[in-house]
Amino acid sequence: MKVVKFGGSSLANAAQVSKVVHIIQSDEQRRFVVVSAPGKRFAGDIKVTDLLIQYAQATINHQSTDTITGQIIARYEEIATAYHIDPVAFNQIKDTILALPNDDYQDRDYLMATFKAHGEKLNAVLIAQVLQSVGVNAKYLDPKDAGMVVTDSPNDAEIVPESYDRLSEWADSSLVRVIPGFFGYNAQGQICTFSRGGSDITGAIVARGVHADRYENFTDVDAIYAANPSVVSHPIAIHNMTFREMRELAYAGFSVFHDEALIPAIQGDIQVVVKNTNHPSERGTSITSQKRVNPAYPVSGIASSPNFCGIYIRKYMLDKKSYSQKILNILAEYGLTYEHMPSGIDDLTVIMHQDQLSADLEDTLIRELVIALRPDEIHITHDYALLMVVGEGMANRTGIMSKATDALARQNVKLVMVNQGASEISMMFGIQQDHADIAVQALYDTFFPDL
Amino acid sequence: MKVVKFGGSSLANAAQVSKVVHIIQSDEQRRFVVVSAPGKRFAGDIKVTDLLIQYAQATINHQSTDTITGQIIARYEEIATAYHIDPVAFNQIKDTILALPNDDYQDRDYLMATFKAHGEKLNAVLIAQVLQSVGVNAKYLDPKDAGMVVTDSPNDAEIVPESYDRLSEWADSSLVRVIPGFFGYNAQGQICTFSRGGSDITGAIVARGVHADRYENFTDVDAIYAANPSVVSHPIAIHNMTFREMRELAYAGFSVFHDEALIPAIQGDIQVVVKNTNHPSERGTSITSQKRVNPAYPVSGIASSPNFCGIYIRKYMLDKKSYSQKILNILAEYGLTYEHMPSGIDDLTVIMHQDQLSADLEDTLIRELVIALRPDEIHITHDYALLMVVGEGMANRTGIMSKATDALARQNVKLVMVNQGASEISMMFGIQQDHADIAVQALYDTFFPDL
Repeated sequence: MKVVKFGGSSLANAAQVSKVVHIIQSDEQRRFVVVSAPGKRFAGDIKVTDLLIQYAQATINHQSTDTITGQIIARYEEIATAYHIDPVAFNQIKDTILALPNDDYQDRDYLMATFKAHGEKLNAVLIAQVLQSVGVNAKYLDPKDAGMVVTDSPNDAEIVPESYDRLSEWADSSLVRVIPGFFGYNAQGQICTFSRGGSDITGAIVARGVHADRYENFTDVDAIYAANPSVVSHPIAIHNMTFREMRELAYAGFSVFHDEALIPAIQGDIQVVVKNTNHPSERGTSITSQKRVNPAYPVSGIASSPNFCGIYIRKYMLDKKSYSQKILNILAEYGLTYEHMPSGIDDLTVIMHQDQLSADLEDTLIRELVIALRPDEIHITHDYALLMVVGEGMANRTGIMSKATDALARQNVKLVMVNQGASEISMMFGIQQDHADIAVQALYDTFFPDL
Repeated sequence: MKVVKFGGSSLANAAQVSKVVHIIQSDEQRRFVVVSAPGKRFAGDIKVTDLLIQYAQATINHQSTDTITGQIIARYEEIATAYHIDPVAFNQIKDTILALPNDDYQDRDYLMATFKAHGEKLNAVLIAQVLQSVGVNAKYLDPKDAGMVVTDSPNDAEIVPESYDRLSEWADSSLVRVIPGFFGYNAQGQICTFSRGGSDITGAIVARGVHADRYENFTDVDAIYAANPSVVSHPIAIHNMTFREMRELAYAGFSVFHDEALIPAIQGDIQVVVKNTNHPSERGTSITSQKRVNPAYPVSGIASSPNFCGIYIRKYMLDKKSYSQKILNILAEYGLTYEHMPSGIDDLTVIMHQDQLSADLEDTLIRELVIALRPDEIHITHDYALLMVVGEGMANRTGIMSKATDALARQNVKLVMVNQGASEISMMFGIQQDHADIAVQALYDTFFPDL
């Protein structure tokens, strides 16, 4: 039995929904359908989730909401009309949207969570009706009834482990269950959402809960590619990869599949298959715990992610342990997170996402570090990219680092950081971000030479 | 004016002492002479410091000390006899050795410190007499009179900053002052030593204190070499290097000049020159804060240091900050220090000196880490070497990493860690330690190709 999840672009309008209906009808194993809110129909379009955020903000600010509710309702209505959904049933969706401001909310965060979650919730209600209208024995399943209890964090919740037992009770259902992605309920019965894009997470949770054989994640690409197609033209598709590879690539910008959604899949050892709603016969990308035997290429993928900065700190005879502890304490004090802290003999570099730092906060942070550490030298460098070369096939092979650094040197890409730990399935380089595209292309040409 | 320091092998016997006398006589700028205890005269010989440690242990254990005191006295006597030192004066040295057990010591650590320090102390007394006997206007200067106050840590003391002011009062002395290395006095007037080999530290402290133009460190090599001469045959001498380069190379096993001794030199910006007592006309190695302009080779030196281990810890979606903090706390609990903690996306490796870990302690540590971190995977790998490639000339050049990793790959040296931070003057590789010599040779051949 399969859990299938459809992303926003797969449900953006009636034309896309017809593809989804066909995919569900074509395989009776697809018995749990997790849906996102309707996404963009064309470049520049606004996703329903973003419309709902505007709606929530207008409500909080006591501004007029007529225009925005009109836009939201129109998105659902277009689909309902195409499938001749009973106007009485559709009016319930419409009324629910209009009544959102009337509920009691504990605070603005809970209000925001509930408004956002209705993008998925109402879409699931509608898709269940659409499926019924074409003869599929489908029924809406609310996360509350499914037993999806989440932590009490309105806009960044996590699943509570006991939910899996409750979900497993639904495994034998003979109906097609349509479940909204992105949210669950806390112990008090309030809606709390996962992080943005969290429908992937719901799909993975349901797949683990009902012990699915496969979790199919339908989106708008034929596969996950070995490099970003907007940088490298026609990169090779990765048809098989491991969870670890996906996780490393996701970190550095491969955003096809939500990072956090890997965890339930790993925990339940559920095969994840990324497929294209528009070309459902394409193989897609299968992600499992199984390593490939004799992969054609040692490297699976090359990714880069911009907007990092590095705080370089040097002090003769620094005591790393007390130094690191002081740095961690100061970061914690300002709510900052760091990504890596490579150390030399008398220096270390704190690498972090630079969008955490305003100019003021940066000044304050440097000042605090100077007071606490009395360094001989301290400076911050902006606009790093982290470049990742990932592949299970790299383990136990020598010469991969040499090939990579040679390719970068030939393009005069300067390495400001090199980091390869004992995982052996990835190498990380810090480079200037305006070299990132050249670097990705050079590494791609090196590790996929015949293509 | 120069401060000169002579190591143990330069003062091992009368023949060596005559070279020291000649060096002092040949340059009237050499006005502060810091001496070690007599070292080894031949392979397999025992250093006086080690004899004194045996003497201290026998005293603590109430064992007979006649043989050991005889051996110690004989070492000084051979030098005294050669220079016809007044027997009355020499008897004071002898009596001091024999009377060491009679003093009151706060505890065994202070006893040990005082016994050890007398290797240098009595040698300085004797060398002052030797110099006088050949007509040099020399006088013993005790660290107490010099004003060298140190922290109250009997066998691992550090200089107290106020000492520099007191030392500066001796700068104008017209005599040659002979000062014992290795120790000072705490605020209570008790002897406390620096870490082993700490005569280099005394020399640097004196040089900074008296504002010397140069600190000459006489030892038994013609220069510091670009690689270990016992690994690479006839490596090139490094005639000029920076403090930073020396510090990085010292970390990975270049033991010619004591690590901690660099700090006073850096603070006082004193030129350090490492020279050979046996070939004083050789240029030696000059260490300063000045970077070389247009160095012939981008790399200055290649070092490797064995006996590291790496604890590899992997957990999906680990929170680096709390993870690192937990690890640091556990290490602190067991008094362990770590060297580096390179991190991947979902993993990190704690690299530390493995001689800190007994088999029992290793088991305990792993168990504590498992309890605190609940990792998906944890294992320890022993017998790493850290391989360092160091050179100021590497900064702002691309392709150095590529050359290095290519050279290692051609010798099938597997990289278990690669670490290059923002200092840009060094690269660090973790490799299996039985590959270390091959690796050093391969890197030497790559970066010094014409030699």
